[in-house]
Amino acid sequence: SAKSKPKSRSTCWLLQRRQLNNISIVFAELIATAMLMFLGCMGCIQNSFFTNGHFQCALNFGFVVLICIQCFGCVCGAHLNPAVTLANYIYNMISLPMAVAYFFAQMLGAFIGYGLLKAIMPESAIYSTDTPSGVCVTSVHSSLTGLQGVVIEFLITSALIAICCGVWDPRNAKFQDSVGVRFGLAISCLSLTAGQFTGASMNPARSFAPALWNGAWENHWIYWVGPMAGALVSSLIYKYAFRREVEELEEQESTMSTKRTAEQEFA
Amino acid sequence: SAKSKPKSRSTCWLLQRRQLNNISIVFAELIATAMLMFLGCMGCIQNSFFTNGHFQCALNFGFVVLICIQCFGCVCGAHLNPAVTLANYIYNMISLPMAVAYFFAQMLGAFIGYGLLKAIMPESAIYSTDTPSGVCVTSVHSSLTGLQGVVIEFLITSALIAICCGVWDPRNAKFQDSVGVRFGLAISCLSLTAGQFTGASMNPARSFAPALWNGAWENHWIYWVGPMAGALVSSLIYKYAFRREVEELEEQESTMSTKRTAEQEFA
Amino acid sequence: SAKSKPKSRSTCWLLQRRQLNNISIVFAELIATAMLMFLGCMGCIQNSFFTNGHFQCALNFGFVVLICIQCFGCVCGAHLNPAVTLANYIYNMISLPMAVAYFFAQMLGAFIGYGLLKAIMPESAIYSTDTPSGVCVTSVHSSLTGLQGVVIEFLITSALIAICCGVWDPRNAKFQDSVGVRFGLAISCLSLTAGQFTGASMNPARSFAPALWNGAWENHWIYWVGPMAGALVSSLIYKYAFRREVEELEEQESTMSTKRTAEQEFA
Amino acid sequence: SAKSKPKSRSTCWLLQRRQLNNISIVFAELIATAMLMFLGCMGCIQNSFFTNGHFQCALNFGFVVLICIQCFGCVCGAHLNPAVTLANYIYNMISLPMAVAYFFAQMLGAFIGYGLLKAIMPESAIYSTDTPSGVCVTSVHSSLTGLQGVVIEFLITSALIAICCGVWDPRNAKFQDSVGVRFGLAISCLSLTAGQFTGASMNPARSFAPALWNGAWENHWIYWVGPMAGALVSSLIYKYAFRREVEELEEQESTMSTKRTAEQEFA
Repeated sequence: SAKSKPKSRSTCWLLQRRQLNNISIVFAELIATAMLMFLGCMGCIQNSFFTNGHFQCALNFGFVVLICIQCFGCVCGAHLNPAVTLANYIYNMISLPMAVAYFFAQMLGAFIGYGLLKAIMPESAIYSTDTPSGVCVTSVHSSLTGLQGVVIEFLITSALIAICCGVWDPRNAKFQDSVGVRFGLAISCLSLTAGQFTGASMNPARSFAPALWNGAWENHWIYWVGPMAGALVSSLIYKYAFRREVEELEEQESTMSTKRTAEQEFA
Repeated sequence: SAKSKPKSRSTCWLLQRRQLNNISIVFAELIATAMLMFLGCMGCIQNSFFTNGHFQCALNFGFVVLICIQCFGCVCGAHLNPAVTLANYIYNMISLPMAVAYFFAQMLGAFIGYGLLKAIMPESAIYSTDTPSGVCVTSVHSSLTGLQGVVIEFLITSALIAICCGVWDPRNAKFQDSVGVRFGLAISCLSLTAGQFTGASMNPARSFAPALWNGAWENHWIYWVGPMAGALVSSLIYKYAFRREVEELEEQESTMSTKRTAEQEFA
Repeated sequence: SAKSKPKSRSTCWLLQRRQLNNISIVFAELIATAMLMFLGCMGCIQNSFFTNGHFQCALNFGFVVLICIQCFGCVCGAHLNPAVTLANYIYNMISLPMAVAYFFAQMLGAFIGYGLLKAIMPESAIYSTDTPSGVCVTSVHSSLTGLQGVVIEFLITSALIAICCGVWDPRNAKFQDSVGVRFGLAISCLSLTAGQFTGASMNPARSFAPALWNGAWENHWIYWVGPMAGALVSSLIYKYAFRREVEELEEQESTMSTKRTAEQEFA
Repeated sequence: SAKSKPKSRSTCWLLQRRQLNNISIVFAELIATAMLMFLGCMGCIQNSFFTNGHFQCALNFGFVVLICIQCFGCVCGAHLNPAVTLANYIYNMISLPMAVAYFFAQMLGAFIGYGLLKAIMPESAIYSTDTPSGVCVTSVHSSLTGLQGVVIEFLITSALIAICCGVWDPRNAKFQDSVGVRFGLAISCLSLTAGQFTGASMNPARSFAPALWNGAWENHWIYWVGPMAGALVSSLIYKYAFRREVEELEEQESTMSTKRTAEQEFA
């Protein structure tokens, strides 16, 4: 690649800088995912001392995503989620090796983040009557079957990935300022909506770490199949059905006048 | 229309591309409205297991609108609502055939979205003591008459459409970044305000789908008359009383100096 | 003024257009204030049927302000409040006759908005055990003296006006996109903070209308003295101590580099 | 410094203006911190009359930060916190003498703000069964040890400073519009997350003032060691591992195309 794009600096130094850059990027993704798990799960701790209801916990999880995007969005994009990285790969915005590196960084980051929480918090905060198998372990509510659970995870992850595709759409390229707020509130919404049914994971890494630390593997496959399938389907549909490149001419038209005649709309 | 605007490509291909584009746009509106119903109503499920109060449900509905705008705003504008499409048509921003297509896409989308919810959720989540005629069915509170209900729907939809007119105003054309957040919070507000009185529908499609699926037609006319009349009145008043084109000169003045003398203001 | 700024159109027409414009602006301020009262107070209705707690009501009031700014900010600035208009006048951003017109529009708008609420809602929603003298009537909590109340109103209105001065500061002129969200959340915050003590009025028009409709004049002077004094003091301090014109040179420096040396900062 | 940068005005006047400017900046920081304490702590008052739960209080504290940033962000940056000033100093964005001045302004401002609250509020609002040692005094929950407390304060302040570093990153220089909203919601999140464990101070000035006014010094060292160490570690890691200057060329590439080939990403 260095050959195909010769710049004014030495090839050797460029390579080295690029590798360092990539290590920095993957490291940021690791820390961001660790933050997601540590802060997000800490806000879900519920026992007789600490009263965090579903409303507050779900809202908080979205705000944690806002924090992660604000901190590391400009460094690594703050995917925080193998499903998002898969969609990013389908959108040709990340290389395969980098996507694999992101995946391992996310898994390791989630493991470290949840481990840190377990190390710091007293036992009574992790295991309580409300969270018998450990705080933040995602499970399907007893009134739902596993199939219902996987369909819900599939659908809410599809929505999540459609949000990502909306953010990545060339027509929205200029609107980056409040991305963190919009994304955070969207995650809050999906958590509020589906949290009581499946935990609203939408993220294999987020479900894997608590399962591993607490040995709670019931229905765990749901949190891999649902999100990854949702990401695949949603990003492919959006890419081929809705994504449009911005044509300079059309863009000018739209900014100059908000009036569109019938002929332009429906020929 | 292809004749009046000849570009460097063949007319035939252009026509085809435009038609495909319109199908894509209408399809996006359909999916967006389905998302609105599925996610919005899912967040309102209330029974002995799942505790979603009015506060949380209303806030969540606004955030769902934020998600729909974020996902499909750049594709189809994410009207989600025949009342918004009516106002859009009055503002000359959409052709009549396209507006009709939007209307059917919204009705079908709402039907599919709510149907999906009924298919996935257990019976006990749809019908409970809190929601005897089905979750998300809008009805007028027993302490209010039907007339009071239709006036409330008229007024809150007027407010909703005034928000749209504000967003569409040429003077706000530059401020698109946080539109989703502003719109979402505005819907949250109107739901919080009027949700306990009439369900804060503001949207015939949103009220029609649950009514159809559950056969709950009591006071249903309110959710067609109130919102459509509100949209008509509000958009006409805004268009003729408040809408102003941006004059380049005045714009420059306003950005260069925030100081305006008395003479300029009140001649 | 038409003489000092001759443009290419006839003076007579210009005058007429300007007068029509001013009528439109004042009318927008009237509607905006009516919306504030109608929606804001509707969200505060509390009785045995409708359960709107302090948390929800305060949050909602801020979102109503967001709606008003979104609808009419580009038309009339959406002051909604004589205290804001006073500060605006001190900032030389509005002429004296226009400020007086705004004041009467706000008073009349608030009167109409609250009257509409009383007309539509059943008696049981306006008067209940929680709101014996009428919903939305501001009063000082029984554990506080009137003096404490007026000081609280003075201080929170000072904060409100400092927010306005921040928005109006030339250095923030570019940052208009999310003004509605920021302002709305700020009002939510001040309502959450002081709502239980004094009702967090910060606005004579907002307190006058419910007092007039319900004949509840106890401690009413507080809601004129506190806010107007707060607006006066806060805007004068901000204007002379903190307001700075943007110098083109400094602006360029700051955008080009975020690094400032010690010498530049503390000479 | 005046010598090295001769402008068209007299050196003497420049010096004087700069000194006046610095006094204005430090005064703004003092008022901002006083506002933080007064409004933030007022929203935490809990007794048999006033019911502010943890959820509302934490959300409110974030919105108070939003207000402070909106009011004084353009004047002094609205650090409000010695830990933020330390990180700002490590980022070379403030001189040492100015940082020291900021520190004293923050301490004095917090002292004044909390004192004002104590002066205005009745005794029963400051001391209650929920807040026996005084409202807003930060303490470690009885189920946690002091060590656990200091680690939590260290970690959440690290997150806070990472947010600051994200805002200060040259790649985010263009995205200033919604900084207040993002920061406010981030503070709300951290307060929701850790508020019940340590009070989520993240700020020595915020903890010192209530401790001094109420003589409540238990575990007070935690609120100095945790935040300052967190600020030091977090800002140094971010500065050397993640911070990147924007290169004009790369910026153009990224804005022109969202597609990056594999070679560019992972050479």
